[in-house]
Amino acid sequence: MSFVVSLQAAWAQADSMLCVGLDPDPSRLPMHLAGRPDAILAFCREIVDATAEFACAFKPQIAYFAAARAEDQLEELIAHIHRAHPGKPVILDAKRGDIGATAAQYAREAFERYRADAVTVNPYMGFDSLEPWLAWHDRGIILLCRTSNSGGGDLQALDVGGERLYERVARLAAGPWNSNGQLGLVVGATFPAELAQVRRIAGELPLLVPGIGAQGGDIEATVRAGGRRMIVNSSRAILYASRTDDFGPAAATVARTTRDALRDALARC
Amino acid sequence: MSFVVSLQAAWAQADSMLCVGLDPDPSRLPMHLAGRPDAILAFCREIVDATAEFACAFKPQIAYFAAARAEDQLEELIAHIHRAHPGKPVILDAKRGDIGATAAQYAREAFERYRADAVTVNPYMGFDSLEPWLAWHDRGIILLCRTSNSGGGDLQALDVGGERLYERVARLAAGPWNSNGQLGLVVGATFPAELAQVRRIAGELPLLVPGIGAQGGDIEATVRAGGRRMIVNSSRAILYASRTDDFGPAAATVARTTRDALRDALARC
Repeated sequence: MSFVVSLQAAWAQADSMLCVGLDPDPSRLPMHLAGRPDAILAFCREIVDATAEFACAFKPQIAYFAAARAEDQLEELIAHIHRAHPGKPVILDAKRGDIGATAAQYAREAFERYRADAVTVNPYMGFDSLEPWLAWHDRGIILLCRTSNSGGGDLQALDVGGERLYERVARLAAGPWNSNGQLGLVVGATFPAELAQVRRIAGELPLLVPGIGAQGGDIEATVRAGGRRMIVNSSRAILYASRTDDFGPAAATVARTTRDALRDALARC
Repeated sequence: MSFVVSLQAAWAQADSMLCVGLDPDPSRLPMHLAGRPDAILAFCREIVDATAEFACAFKPQIAYFAAARAEDQLEELIAHIHRAHPGKPVILDAKRGDIGATAAQYAREAFERYRADAVTVNPYMGFDSLEPWLAWHDRGIILLCRTSNSGGGDLQALDVGGERLYERVARLAAGPWNSNGQLGLVVGATFPAELAQVRRIAGELPLLVPGIGAQGGDIEATVRAGGRRMIVNSSRAILYASRTDDFGPAAATVARTTRDALRDALARC
């Protein structure tokens, strides 16, 4: 089953556009887990189990695992999601990007080793750098387009001849680059006008939208701009809703509230 | 000591612009190492020891280690280079790029965990995505500018208002983005005219130049275009010079020949 088909099923099944981002910052883990060698896994697994019913997908951010020498915990976490929450897509947020032979190794890392259903990829190196990813026909490739950080526009907003660089990326991803229907786009919630513009260009492409919650993006404006077919990510607001041993229920409350806010905003569109 | 100062010492000490790229493709390792759990480390360590006298730097490509679950071997390899060949800079080719909090984790991965002297970073997400890297004042940050692959121009060659996107990246890296003198640029040897143009814009910035050897870049044209202050990478032509147990001496021969060809070309400039 292709990533886009799994995603559609997950959107429908959970009636949710919320994606729970798994960015386990070691300095912010619950106090009672400190010192456990598997603290990251224990933390993320409890977050996953507490929030799964409100989420259409999970998005582990690999940097937090790599910095902590916790690749084995990331493998086990993703295996746990597949086992305990079958059908819930896992998007590995890795933002990789390299030439052919090396990209093929990164694809093995994401898809064979970690068994991710989709991965985030940086488009700066052009189409042939995407081809080794696209060879995995059942997986999703979500290209950085307009990112949520304040400097995201330094290059992405440059005019490249009647359109901005991020618009060009959206146009390529919706057209010639998307030969097998595997592509999606990362577009920050912090710039609703640009999100709306990407939606106009990209049609039905799934949009992965970070930036709500701790980064300050507004849910109402995001949903008005991006409509359906969004994977709206929240990480820190959910993960760190509490630092005591009730962090799981606290995360579930924030996830449910966010899911409902997205749903209500969609109903008003 | 800063990365650029170490690099200058290494250029002078080895009288070489050659960087040996460590891309250990499991399907191309010497036959007699097959099946050893530490095959990647054993292979790379012998390549390093055989070629160190001809090289100004080593560049391990992290994808090959990550795909093979060999992060521990990468740690040990870099520790070996620092121990056995002190002063020889290690450039971790990771092409990372992410927003602030996450970039800080990637910087910990590269600089604290792997103890790399420099790292390759993707500029697509703009200046604030570089700041967590730049906080490590003694390390080098080498930004993708004009990459060596055929599709590198898809975005990089777009006209962004009187200059191309890669020229804009070079101008930013040589100016406002380089507050502490830590930046360098990746420019492929496969496009000598564009390499020359980046050199004009970037002045004295170190240029990491992949694409000679297996990728077909011409040494004479590369040196004419880029002059001194280049880190000219060759990976496959050196690593896979032989697949039998003489692979170390075979790699040394190719490394010496390449070093000499670079030196001769420079003398003719």
